[in-house]
Amino acid sequence: MSDPASNETPPRRTAFFLSDGTGITVENFGRSLLTQFETVKFAQQSLRFVSTVERAREARRKIDETAVFDGVRPLVFSTLVKPEVRAEIKDSNALLLDIFATFISPLEDELGCISSVSTGRFHGLHNADEYSSRIEAVNFTLSHDDGSTTRHLDEADVILIGISRSGKTPTCLYLSLQYGIRAANFPITEDDLEGPNLPGSLLAYRDKLVALSTEPDRLHRIREARYPNSRYSSLNQCQFEVRQAEALYRKMRIPCLKTTMKSIEEIAATIVDLADLERGRGPGRSRAHV
Amino acid sequence: MSDPASNETPPRRTAFFLSDGTGITVENFGRSLLTQFETVKFAQQSLRFVSTVERAREARRKIDETAVFDGVRPLVFSTLVKPEVRAEIKDSNALLLDIFATFISPLEDELGCISSVSTGRFHGLHNADEYSSRIEAVNFTLSHDDGSTTRHLDEADVILIGISRSGKTPTCLYLSLQYGIRAANFPITEDDLEGPNLPGSLLAYRDKLVALSTEPDRLHRIREARYPNSRYSSLNQCQFEVRQAEALYRKMRIPCLKTTMKSIEEIAATIVDLADLERGRGPGRSRAHV
Repeated sequence: MSDPASNETPPRRTAFFLSDGTGITVENFGRSLLTQFETVKFAQQSLRFVSTVERAREARRKIDETAVFDGVRPLVFSTLVKPEVRAEIKDSNALLLDIFATFISPLEDELGCISSVSTGRFHGLHNADEYSSRIEAVNFTLSHDDGSTTRHLDEADVILIGISRSGKTPTCLYLSLQYGIRAANFPITEDDLEGPNLPGSLLAYRDKLVALSTEPDRLHRIREARYPNSRYSSLNQCQFEVRQAEALYRKMRIPCLKTTMKSIEEIAATIVDLADLERGRGPGRSRAHV
Repeated sequence: MSDPASNETPPRRTAFFLSDGTGITVENFGRSLLTQFETVKFAQQSLRFVSTVERAREARRKIDETAVFDGVRPLVFSTLVKPEVRAEIKDSNALLLDIFATFISPLEDELGCISSVSTGRFHGLHNADEYSSRIEAVNFTLSHDDGSTTRHLDEADVILIGISRSGKTPTCLYLSLQYGIRAANFPITEDDLEGPNLPGSLLAYRDKLVALSTEPDRLHRIREARYPNSRYSSLNQCQFEVRQAEALYRKMRIPCLKTTMKSIEEIAATIVDLADLERGRGPGRSRAHV
């Protein structure tokens, strides 16, 4: 872990992510902030579902013990909003970064009304509807994975195309799970690349197509891991397929996303932007207003 | 949209979510805060990938136009960190909630060092590794969906079991996509419920099992939507299966999660907590430190 070129071990701090729900918001938030401090090593721990005074006391105990163990107080990122739960944490031996509470008061002033002190779970209200529409989107995506059927493609919000191992499946799944978007995907095979022409069944849906592409080097490594020393995974073949496929996308004017060095979240969010897909086009779900 | 029992239409405000990346952090954060104000209707708009001065000017134009159109200034939740990009937004006609910048300075004081002004994308550094391990987890999950194979089950981090339509598949996919966890799932069929006994192939993995269950009413509605007026979807059958399955889980001491009225995020985060699964058990990926 330590850098042999350096005589000093880097400082090490513990960061807690404290929430009364899933912790996803506070984890994303805290991690993003911590990446701004590259010289510090952070041990990270999520304390989820801290929704009662008792759970808050447990959390405080952990925080205080860590302060003693580390010899320096931890950082605590918190999205807790219930006063009685926050009160238990307030005097712990930590730098408390109260990320929700900080903004409640300026929002109350601006909106001229008092906030409801809820559990802070943004899925609370329209839960059942949202759940159903996301499940439907996931089912749609699973049944339209890798060109497995061209039935009901007209119901797709977006159709991702790309050569083998260009990242279509995980991106589609993320689009359906995170955004409730019906995302189908369709492989571009060597036959399609000879022409080059789009598979006939896709021609009617050109407006829904988004292509994924990746660097030949990376594709080669990904394919090697699965089928080592094969023609399919050879650098030559990867270079050929990427070049031909990208020429096809240009010719057909299909927007093409280079996925190398992008996270699944980034690829998915870029597609939402690119294809102008609104959150929640699924039935029973409108995200224009909360 | 308006409540017929009320003479006043509720106030309506626009909220922008502004980020130089995917916007997922700022959207989660902003939405959570807005749910604290139940009497206000919010129109919401994400402005993603605002990473240049030019994009920031566009964003500012949109914000200022909305202020004129609404007759009241919008709320702007921002995770922008680059000074030159933030400067463009600072004087827009909005309540600016600068959610990252607010905490940078107390963190710098505490850590005794200066933050790197990066793009704030927490996937930046170990991107390729993290991407690969999540893709591997997704592939594992897809190939172990619905008991499709019992090969390599020893490599699973967790195995979800449950009767048909209890939410196993989307939960597994979320676990693999969001947490990089190898999540398999296995159906509990009517045959298993007659005994009641666990499917033989699962007995060796009892420590990895987590059961999902749901209310018979809700299960009935979900199954009806797919196979209306069938024995499979009848309320009677749903009640029988839920009762027998939950008895089986109790008997075998398998932790059982009631998924009714929970979001996929909540179910997944609960499983991570319950099964004590650390983020990123996949290869090439350690999330203990960033």
